[in-house]
Amino acid sequence: MAAAGDVVIAVHGGAGRRPGTTSADEHAFRAGVRHALDTGFAVLAEGGTALGAVEAAVRVLEDDPLFNAGRGAVLNRDGAVELDASIMDGSARSAGAVGGVRRVRHPITLARTILEAGESVLLVGEAAGDVADERRLERPEHEWFVTPVQRARWKDWRERSDGVAGAQLELGTVGAVARDSRGHLAAATSTGGLRGKPPGRIGDTALIGAGTWADERCAVSLTGDGEGIIRAAAAHEVAALVGHRAETLAGAVDDVLNARLGATGIDAGIVGVDAAGRVVLGVNCGFMPRGVRRGADPAVVALDA
Amino acid sequence: MAAAGDVVIAVHGGAGRRPGTTSADEHAFRAGVRHALDTGFAVLAEGGTALGAVEAAVRVLEDDPLFNAGRGAVLNRDGAVELDASIMDGSARSAGAVGGVRRVRHPITLARTILEAGESVLLVGEAAGDVADERRLERPEHEWFVTPVQRARWKDWRERSDGVAGAQLELGTVGAVARDSRGHLAAATSTGGLRGKPPGRIGDTALIGAGTWADERCAVSLTGDGEGIIRAAAAHEVAALVGHRAETLAGAVDDVLNARLGATGIDAGIVGVDAAGRVVLGVNCGFMPRGVRRGADPAVVALDA
Repeated sequence: MAAAGDVVIAVHGGAGRRPGTTSADEHAFRAGVRHALDTGFAVLAEGGTALGAVEAAVRVLEDDPLFNAGRGAVLNRDGAVELDASIMDGSARSAGAVGGVRRVRHPITLARTILEAGESVLLVGEAAGDVADERRLERPEHEWFVTPVQRARWKDWRERSDGVAGAQLELGTVGAVARDSRGHLAAATSTGGLRGKPPGRIGDTALIGAGTWADERCAVSLTGDGEGIIRAAAAHEVAALVGHRAETLAGAVDDVLNARLGATGIDAGIVGVDAAGRVVLGVNCGFMPRGVRRGADPAVVALDA
Repeated sequence: MAAAGDVVIAVHGGAGRRPGTTSADEHAFRAGVRHALDTGFAVLAEGGTALGAVEAAVRVLEDDPLFNAGRGAVLNRDGAVELDASIMDGSARSAGAVGGVRRVRHPITLARTILEAGESVLLVGEAAGDVADERRLERPEHEWFVTPVQRARWKDWRERSDGVAGAQLELGTVGAVARDSRGHLAAATSTGGLRGKPPGRIGDTALIGAGTWADERCAVSLTGDGEGIIRAAAAHEVAALVGHRAETLAGAVDDVLNARLGATGIDAGIVGVDAAGRVVLGVNCGFMPRGVRRGADPAVVALDA
């Protein structure tokens, strides 16, 4: 059980089948996770909020071209980058989210802007981009988001799929959960979704209760098969098991990840933190870059299941 | 407890503060609800599925200009009709949804088309309209959706709000839940959302787990303050209370409607049906056109709380 002032942050960089990575790739995955942890932890160490910490951590991963969020995101069916993100403050039960937004450097910051405005929860498409303009958020040109690796994979997908295959799950959705010194919890998730997804397809990452949830009991961020996660209301289901069945967070994550999602063939990963500061990092498939940083301890980072 | 073959359908026409209705309006509300109940019930009586019944009932209410869904929906900030809808099949845990779609006569049928396709769960904006074209769904001109009443209310809102006021909750989101002769459950919800809403704002009605949920335990459709409903994951929370706390559906609906939503000032209404065919119709504010039809009994319809 953590003491009242104990602060902790955990992040993930997406669940999936283990890619054919080199040791240089592995080093880069670990470095990206560590950078996000350290950046988010610095917010907590200065007495900042869990909400600020998860936003800061996710911004780092959105900028990192190795992850499928912000710069380096996958391309949709038409070769465009369309981004989803959501953020939730557990103490206020406030939330903000964006879906299918283009040319926003930090979709998680746009989601937080929507949370702070307090009017809508979810804005999609061009209208969400207009809000980014109003708030003077950074809006690089489309080409800035498209890395050579993602363009090559998209071309490969298009050639092999012949235009008829389904969208393709890519590693690299990113997310973070944190507990701050007041014991408040928050969660944030950001992604480019599936390679080859239809334009206008919104995945679990944009949906409060599916890919992201936070309340006074726990904060949760998911990654994996988005449609399967939506149909399980997976993030809220973790909180419901903790709240209504008095399961531990570890038990609830295991139940949702393995008994529900895994049992029906749905690849997924979950990071969560509970009110006592206990962290769970679970994945039901081969690979999920992830890590946790707590108190004076150095960050702990892992890749394989 | 219902027998194995007992079929039942319940619908709502939106929760809100009681409007200054005339007795002619009240007659029209009741007639609309009854027409939807009879249409959905006919599907069940012929051995059809719960999914087909809730779709059929909601289509009737989408066509009825009195309700805030399909034709007769509210206008957004820019004077446009943007529609949200979702549908879920409890036995298969399959789901489909659309958000911010324009010029689709029956958004609930588009949502069902997406459910049947099985690829995405939620499609938004023009891309959702493109799918409606591919499937040859009816796409009337925009003017067909705009009733004189809604245009007048929007002008009044715009003048009074001076362009800065928030969006306005309107009565009339519609929804249905049903249990078919195999004991399967389904839920469907459809709306124009809030008058004066920002373009691209997606409400609870498009979100699985917020405005709509169905599994093997219960099927639920909500109406009311959309952002409050999203932040409570209200539809899934009803199912979680039934499943994890073994609450009755009536107890779970009361808990969510009054202890959670009502206690924090969130106006809402819920219709639900459980595996045994028990129906609950609850509202925490003044007014919700609603009704239920079961077996050989005539439809029972009510308006006030």
